[in-house]
Amino acid sequence: MASKGGKSGKGDGKKPERRDLRRLLRVPGGARVDLSSYAPDATPGGPRTKAEGLAATAGMGDELAELQERLYAASTAGDRRRLLLVLQGMDTSGKGGTVKHVIGFFNPSGCRIRSFKTPTREELNHPFLWRIMRALPQPGEIGIFDRSHYEDVLIARVHELVPRRQLGRRYGQINRFEQSLADDGVSVVKVFLHIGHEQQRRRLLERLDDPDKHWKFDPGDIDERALWLDYQKAYEKALERCSTDAAPWYLVPADRKWYRNWAVSRLLLEHLRALDPQYPKGDFDVEECRERLLG
Amino acid sequence: MASKGGKSGKGDGKKPERRDLRRLLRVPGGARVDLSSYAPDATPGGPRTKAEGLAATAGMGDELAELQERLYAASTAGDRRRLLLVLQGMDTSGKGGTVKHVIGFFNPSGCRIRSFKTPTREELNHPFLWRIMRALPQPGEIGIFDRSHYEDVLIARVHELVPRRQLGRRYGQINRFEQSLADDGVSVVKVFLHIGHEQQRRRLLERLDDPDKHWKFDPGDIDERALWLDYQKAYEKALERCSTDAAPWYLVPADRKWYRNWAVSRLLLEHLRALDPQYPKGDFDVEECRERLLG
Repeated sequence: MASKGGKSGKGDGKKPERRDLRRLLRVPGGARVDLSSYAPDATPGGPRTKAEGLAATAGMGDELAELQERLYAASTAGDRRRLLLVLQGMDTSGKGGTVKHVIGFFNPSGCRIRSFKTPTREELNHPFLWRIMRALPQPGEIGIFDRSHYEDVLIARVHELVPRRQLGRRYGQINRFEQSLADDGVSVVKVFLHIGHEQQRRRLLERLDDPDKHWKFDPGDIDERALWLDYQKAYEKALERCSTDAAPWYLVPADRKWYRNWAVSRLLLEHLRALDPQYPKGDFDVEECRERLLG
Repeated sequence: MASKGGKSGKGDGKKPERRDLRRLLRVPGGARVDLSSYAPDATPGGPRTKAEGLAATAGMGDELAELQERLYAASTAGDRRRLLLVLQGMDTSGKGGTVKHVIGFFNPSGCRIRSFKTPTREELNHPFLWRIMRALPQPGEIGIFDRSHYEDVLIARVHELVPRRQLGRRYGQINRFEQSLADDGVSVVKVFLHIGHEQQRRRLLERLDDPDKHWKFDPGDIDERALWLDYQKAYEKALERCSTDAAPWYLVPADRKWYRNWAVSRLLLEHLRALDPQYPKGDFDVEECRERLLG
């Protein structure tokens, strides 16, 4: 069940260790989603202050690193399981910052990061899932997508890039695709970084105020911002249609960066703990190897 | 000129800021290379102690992060320049650890990491540079290769995987390929992590002593270790033939992890400083954008 961010003050004092953030932030599939009822500056299930949040996040580091190493190690013995973190959100919602934060825990050699931009001509000549499939994590890896196939039901919907009927089919295609990933051992963790309209204004103004950040600024971002409500509707539809048991959507309030980082870290921790990957046993004679090395 | 590690005690007291590590560690192309004359536990040009080394390395962090951001930012305005760090070295020389260390400085979204393993059947059906070209960094990115096309003149030479004449041609092919990369704006930084035979023994024994590290251990590693001298010769040949102005080889003594990390960080810093990428100026009216955002 998703928690309505606006009401999340209750019970925040409990130790987060005892809560299952996956249940708290999961968007219920099938039911109508109203994004305006989720406060983007809420901190559901999280620590109460920024200082506590930073400490709690740092405190997850060692366990996350070990779980990733175990996941990777297990793959060398044939375990096909892997994790795919999908990040979506409006411009300035912090997708890039989240990638940088998350990767800090892991050995980057075991991660596969991909940022999806405007499709190239070659990508457009293929079905929309083609470029996604080429970027999937391999067994033992953690994949991180900064944007994803959801762009094909978000910007594609808002700007009517494809006929409405074709768009309508994509939700089902996405669900079947994600089910096939789950069947193949991929834990798909989809995170919608939910920021507020006012917060986006502040972040865009910050970019304008710093000449070293002008390269990140595109006046077109202001045009897109004018379509805010259309995008919110497109997100609501994507969350409603594609939050499945095989690949649930999590709604992470993202106005507060410290909460966003804590929540994404915690979601990863819970998913990796559930996988509980194990170091494989060596199938060799340790003593014999030791003697050979010393001999 | 390359410094002979064994004699590197002299002058270590000078502030590293005043030295050009690129000159100090560069392998002179064309001349005969004798790896046994380079002490793997030396610290040429580096800080004198581990504590100083760790502090000096951490001290480069902010500048490295900014230079990477500027490199990436410049690419959004058409600057095609990018950097490719190629890591080679014997088993346990610390290639993976170096990747993890280096990536810690950067925004991972601007990095392209690739670890080259035993070629797949598809890769074998293509020229040996095919899989390399597909993994190259794009403009603005920092590419990191854990192993590379050099495997095709290293393991391929030691195990005679291809006829000697074909092997001989590869050095020239590699040089022409790397020249074409340089011509296209790629700064190719090739680092040979030089560890000692005894140090490798210690690191392999450490893996044996810890059951959680057995997955990293392959008894075949001991067989490969028996070919140590053949591999050293293959490395000497690769360094002799392929240390060019377009793409020099740097020899980094790697028995001491703190020196290895310091030296690779410093080489990256010097190369990025030489590129001196600039934030592009925005080509939009800042005041007008601000008004639109506030309006």
